[in-house]
Amino acid sequence: MLKTKRTVKRELILAEAAKLFKDRGYGGTSMRDLAGQVGMEAASMYNHIRSKDELLDSICFRISDTYISQLAQIQAQATSYSGKIRALVRLHIQLMVEDGAAVSVANHDWKYLPEPRLSEFKQARKSYERGFAALIEAGIAAGEFRPVNVSVALFTVLSAVRWVELWYRPGRGLTAEELETNIITVLLGGLERPG
Amino acid sequence: MLKTKRTVKRELILAEAAKLFKDRGYGGTSMRDLAGQVGMEAASMYNHIRSKDELLDSICFRISDTYISQLAQIQAQATSYSGKIRALVRLHIQLMVEDGAAVSVANHDWKYLPEPRLSEFKQARKSYERGFAALIEAGIAAGEFRPVNVSVALFTVLSAVRWVELWYRPGRGLTAEELETNIITVLLGGLERPG
Repeated sequence: MLKTKRTVKRELILAEAAKLFKDRGYGGTSMRDLAGQVGMEAASMYNHIRSKDELLDSICFRISDTYISQLAQIQAQATSYSGKIRALVRLHIQLMVEDGAAVSVANHDWKYLPEPRLSEFKQARKSYERGFAALIEAGIAAGEFRPVNVSVALFTVLSAVRWVELWYRPGRGLTAEELETNIITVLLGGLERPG
Repeated sequence: MLKTKRTVKRELILAEAAKLFKDRGYGGTSMRDLAGQVGMEAASMYNHIRSKDELLDSICFRISDTYISQLAQIQAQATSYSGKIRALVRLHIQLMVEDGAAVSVANHDWKYLPEPRLSEFKQARKSYERGFAALIEAGIAAGEFRPVNVSVALFTVLSAVRWVELWYRPGRGLTAEELETNIITVLLGGLERPG
């Protein structure tokens, strides 16, 4: 599908907005700052987006929609539970590496969403967490995973990948692929070598 | 050692300060708020502490001193590297459970420390991370750990326990001990059951 000029412009505005929100915070970013960053007059930027709220909404829901749709796809795959959790961990890392600013905004600035979108966003996150937890639970039941507390395992895995957001920059001597493999080794296989 | 009334008062002020900094942010907390919370006149509170900066300093360095001294103790223990990493993970979780507000301030508000204490704090953190990383590295060399990238393993483990700060409340149906055991199982043993 060819992207229209209009779509390209809108995506550019969203990408710059995510960077500014990440660096200066949602409250600390003005539409004037954004227009300056994009290299447009504020007035003509309003042909593409209606408000700062709309930008935040688009960024947060693009990320949560990605998680939700990828989860559905992974749930449907004919792979082991271990394969599914690996795919989810990989998804988190890839999103942070490829779309770091947007992920950061969805992780931190979602709380500025106005209602009813705030509740919808929290609902989407909860539903994602439930789906992720259900895969861990099924993996334990199938004997693939150790019999750990499901909530603890879920939050440990979700939290374990969060540092990538702050730390990873291309050229830190590690490819995204190596990063993924190493994190998955620790979380799925464990730091300890089996006796 | 018996604590003097003076020391007890100071500790009370520090504990309330940590809670306020955590809830309202360092910038959002005034000395007047704090005096109200402690139930003292602002003027008499200044008999115990000099400034908001001094409170932040005491909270941050109490936490970083705890990490540094515990690390030294763990390094000196005659246990396996696996035992040492378990002890460090346990330390992180225990500090969050027992002194959550102070840990949160040391994790987030350290950036408001004035120089030269800011640099000293960063130095202390770096030195702690280096010591932690050296234990992982030695464990790999000794064949106890899988041959993972040391920095990735370090940040994955440190990040993995951070959710406890946000999530754990006594009475969430899980004792601190169960929390520790489950997190250690995931990080050291891995989610997967060894084939």
